[in-house]
Amino acid sequence: MPEFNEGLKKDYFGPAGRSSHREDTVIEINEVKVGGSDLAIIAGPCSVESREQILNIADEIKDTGACILRGGAFKPRTSPYNFQGLGEEGLRYLSEAGRASGLPVISEITGICQIDLFGDIDIIQVGARNMQNFELLKEVGRLGKPVLIKRGFSNTLRELLFAADYVMNEGNPNVILCERGIRTFETYTRNTLDLSAVPVLKKLTHLPVIVDPSHATGRSEFVEPMALAAVAAGADGIMIEVHDDPVHSVTDGRQAIDPEAFMRLVSRARAVRAALKEE
Amino acid sequence: MPEFNEGLKKDYFGPAGRSSHREDTVIEINEVKVGGSDLAIIAGPCSVESREQILNIADEIKDTGACILRGGAFKPRTSPYNFQGLGEEGLRYLSEAGRASGLPVISEITGICQIDLFGDIDIIQVGARNMQNFELLKEVGRLGKPVLIKRGFSNTLRELLFAADYVMNEGNPNVILCERGIRTFETYTRNTLDLSAVPVLKKLTHLPVIVDPSHATGRSEFVEPMALAAVAAGADGIMIEVHDDPVHSVTDGRQAIDPEAFMRLVSRARAVRAALKEE
Amino acid sequence: MPEFNEGLKKDYFGPAGRSSHREDTVIEINEVKVGGSDLAIIAGPCSVESREQILNIADEIKDTGACILRGGAFKPRTSPYNFQGLGEEGLRYLSEAGRASGLPVISEITGICQIDLFGDIDIIQVGARNMQNFELLKEVGRLGKPVLIKRGFSNTLRELLFAADYVMNEGNPNVILCERGIRTFETYTRNTLDLSAVPVLKKLTHLPVIVDPSHATGRSEFVEPMALAAVAAGADGIMIEVHDDPVHSVTDGRQAIDPEAFMRLVSRARAVRAALKEE
Amino acid sequence: MPEFNEGLKKDYFGPAGRSSHREDTVIEINEVKVGGSDLAIIAGPCSVESREQILNIADEIKDTGACILRGGAFKPRTSPYNFQGLGEEGLRYLSEAGRASGLPVISEITGICQIDLFGDIDIIQVGARNMQNFELLKEVGRLGKPVLIKRGFSNTLRELLFAADYVMNEGNPNVILCERGIRTFETYTRNTLDLSAVPVLKKLTHLPVIVDPSHATGRSEFVEPMALAAVAAGADGIMIEVHDDPVHSVTDGRQAIDPEAFMRLVSRARAVRAALKEE
Repeated sequence: MPEFNEGLKKDYFGPAGRSSHREDTVIEINEVKVGGSDLAIIAGPCSVESREQILNIADEIKDTGACILRGGAFKPRTSPYNFQGLGEEGLRYLSEAGRASGLPVISEITGICQIDLFGDIDIIQVGARNMQNFELLKEVGRLGKPVLIKRGFSNTLRELLFAADYVMNEGNPNVILCERGIRTFETYTRNTLDLSAVPVLKKLTHLPVIVDPSHATGRSEFVEPMALAAVAAGADGIMIEVHDDPVHSVTDGRQAIDPEAFMRLVSRARAVRAALKEE
Repeated sequence: MPEFNEGLKKDYFGPAGRSSHREDTVIEINEVKVGGSDLAIIAGPCSVESREQILNIADEIKDTGACILRGGAFKPRTSPYNFQGLGEEGLRYLSEAGRASGLPVISEITGICQIDLFGDIDIIQVGARNMQNFELLKEVGRLGKPVLIKRGFSNTLRELLFAADYVMNEGNPNVILCERGIRTFETYTRNTLDLSAVPVLKKLTHLPVIVDPSHATGRSEFVEPMALAAVAAGADGIMIEVHDDPVHSVTDGRQAIDPEAFMRLVSRARAVRAALKEE
Repeated sequence: MPEFNEGLKKDYFGPAGRSSHREDTVIEINEVKVGGSDLAIIAGPCSVESREQILNIADEIKDTGACILRGGAFKPRTSPYNFQGLGEEGLRYLSEAGRASGLPVISEITGICQIDLFGDIDIIQVGARNMQNFELLKEVGRLGKPVLIKRGFSNTLRELLFAADYVMNEGNPNVILCERGIRTFETYTRNTLDLSAVPVLKKLTHLPVIVDPSHATGRSEFVEPMALAAVAAGADGIMIEVHDDPVHSVTDGRQAIDPEAFMRLVSRARAVRAALKEE
Repeated sequence: MPEFNEGLKKDYFGPAGRSSHREDTVIEINEVKVGGSDLAIIAGPCSVESREQILNIADEIKDTGACILRGGAFKPRTSPYNFQGLGEEGLRYLSEAGRASGLPVISEITGICQIDLFGDIDIIQVGARNMQNFELLKEVGRLGKPVLIKRGFSNTLRELLFAADYVMNEGNPNVILCERGIRTFETYTRNTLDLSAVPVLKKLTHLPVIVDPSHATGRSEFVEPMALAAVAAGADGIMIEVHDDPVHSVTDGRQAIDPEAFMRLVSRARAVRAALKEE
């Protein structure tokens, strides 16, 4: 067995660390809370594809119990030859869908120059590929809006906390951390969802921790079991890709679930959460 | 995003594969079942340290709800300078504790030459380091007893199924698969528990799938959340290191939990399982 | 053995691919060539620490055979609590040292907003953490200057080629690729230098490929053997951290070598290159 | 950048460690030396396929400069459905080819029960999958013959040294270590050849260190550059798969090179070695 790693002995001492703030941070966006006793359920399509699409999905997931609407407008695509998102137009449709449904909205930013376009977006997402784009982290830190940081697919948890500190040191305490899978040798799933990150982070930091099983597994049939596992491990929320027509999704269709499957997932996720509260 | 891996398109076609056996395999050891509707809970110390120790622990965990007693006698130690287990004597104490408590027992075999000593052991464990010790797999396949195979810490799920086939091809259909963490760059936990293995394996194979969160995390405080996550992900069972005095455990003490923590874990694990059945 | 990966069957078809440009690209900066028959040797300190420091080092390495001077001014630091570089002032000192020594200079850019400050810098480096900062790649693509892209520490070679295409698609053909180590479970070295990347890239792309053994190993005593190995594997150049006083280096001192060790390294690297040409 | 790992601070103190034996160990097999000033070149087919095949290849590689003949008889195959080797018959043909050509021979053992069959084999190889098969290590340690241990594809260098100690503690000082690639996320090559292992091991241990680029890359076109890189990094030898008809090789044909390519490789490897000696 490998010799025991001493990592955990060292507490984390920056503003993201437990020693800076004993109580769990609860982030409020309108009436929605991330962190604390509620389970935050973020859902929506990978990409905003059209005004009609995002309005429809917002309607469907709201009824099912989502509390935050996600939708990508600026897509950081590995290949320059893939669909890059609707950009500014996508953000407009997303915020319209948010207002219509009453759900706060979240979208990913991929460059500082886009910041002015995010005025109507409630939570700014920094994606896995930009987790160590320190200039971007500092800039979104200055905005004062909640920021969700996804763990880079080969970043340690300590590095994720440093990323949070880059934001917090600009005066913004509203940071949400998100585990979304790391790179390993295993190829049955797109990435390896590192659920141990949940209890480790809950020990090291007071910030809310959510899990994205859709990007981690890359396959719709594994989204529900891994979402349930995330809740059982103690996650404060889950982020799920929902599409009204997954087969025709422009991006990442194989990992999206439809509204019906989403309804089942939410009901089961809440049952797990409730069972653990009672015990 | 990395391009989608085609792994899952290929079903697995050996005797371990779903196509060979549509129904889930349920393995019966005395009155205990692994697979099917019950949650199998395997518990006990990393190593059998003395007759008294294993008898005591067996008593305590039985009352709490464990259904199989584990205890190592031949320890595969990375370092030749560490405690190597009590060997034959350890197996004797373990089987005595099993008879006294009425629990079936499981212990790890590390070489073919030990096979005769395992006559009173109900389930033979092939550890992660021997998952590709093909001569050993074939030999235990000939015994006819249930065999639990732990995934090597850098083996793919496909390789784990091949290992199962090495056993099954000798005429032994009673194989249990166990996820126990893989090696990655992250060092806060000893290994990275790959819980996606659970739904992936449940799709590919009819064999029971259990999870060992103790070896995976290497830290007692993370054992319960990861055990609960395993159950929520659909595992057929969990394998937990329990020690009556973890601080003085001869091997792997930092990951063992005490009987009281184990009782809480079992109760919560069953609550999760029950919640998912109802929904 | 894992089943053979079909990756290489697929050629790479973007502008960075061999099929777009059969001959090896040679990039000329003043009289220095990267690619082709010469071995490009880039050297200098991790960070520009003072005007005097960079002037001194430039002098020393020039005599020893370096052809390009490196020096960081904007340092992408994992921890916000570490030295972040001299910024604009650092770039000024670096370009002064370049002019004084006659060596072209290279420095890392970490955000689009810095672009105007790089007017006197001959080669712009995009670091490992920004390899998938697509907005930055596009922006430096528009500059027309040579760009060196370091492979992200968990990016595949295919993703590195996509990053090159993000630059080339803006009309800039002068891209240099740099292998600098990937993340694995092994911890004796800071990262694992993936030297296979050299022959694989030379097969897939016409762009020059260089290797940075300093950041990969993180230890001065391993820099020379890995630099020699890189040359033997067919690299077009090497990038070496040289400091006149490694022990007092502000950043990454443990991996810097002193000018004397650098002289020996250069002489041996050239001997390897020459030996392979003759055979 | 990840915080520096303290691994190297700890010297390795077992019999494999430098502190136990200051001078480099040189292992003599007949008149061949592994370790010291000569470059040991081990070559031959992945599997012994027939008497004629191994006799032919032995002849060809001997003329080209190989000093040890390899050939697998007991093949540890991930899949039980692949060719498993000629077994005892294969060992007989191999030792006949060794006597005919005057080359010492090496072959892999996969189980203790085979030990009696290895009487005429000069060097016993323990493969990557058995690096932590401690019972096997101890048993071959008792034989007194030279043992070559391949690093497991996810084992640390420290674990490799522990494996050596398992052999040495039985009274056998003649251990050769072999780096053959580790598992990472990169899939262009079968494994990632970790050449940093060479200088790290040369620092930690007095045992000879050789490199197998054939299994590491899994592709014949990358074998030569990585073999040259291994020599430049300071390896004491290389192990190369040579087949007289790679396309029709029964196992691993895509990584085997033909005798002509092997001749070129040997000539260039010796040129690199010579160049480094002179400098």
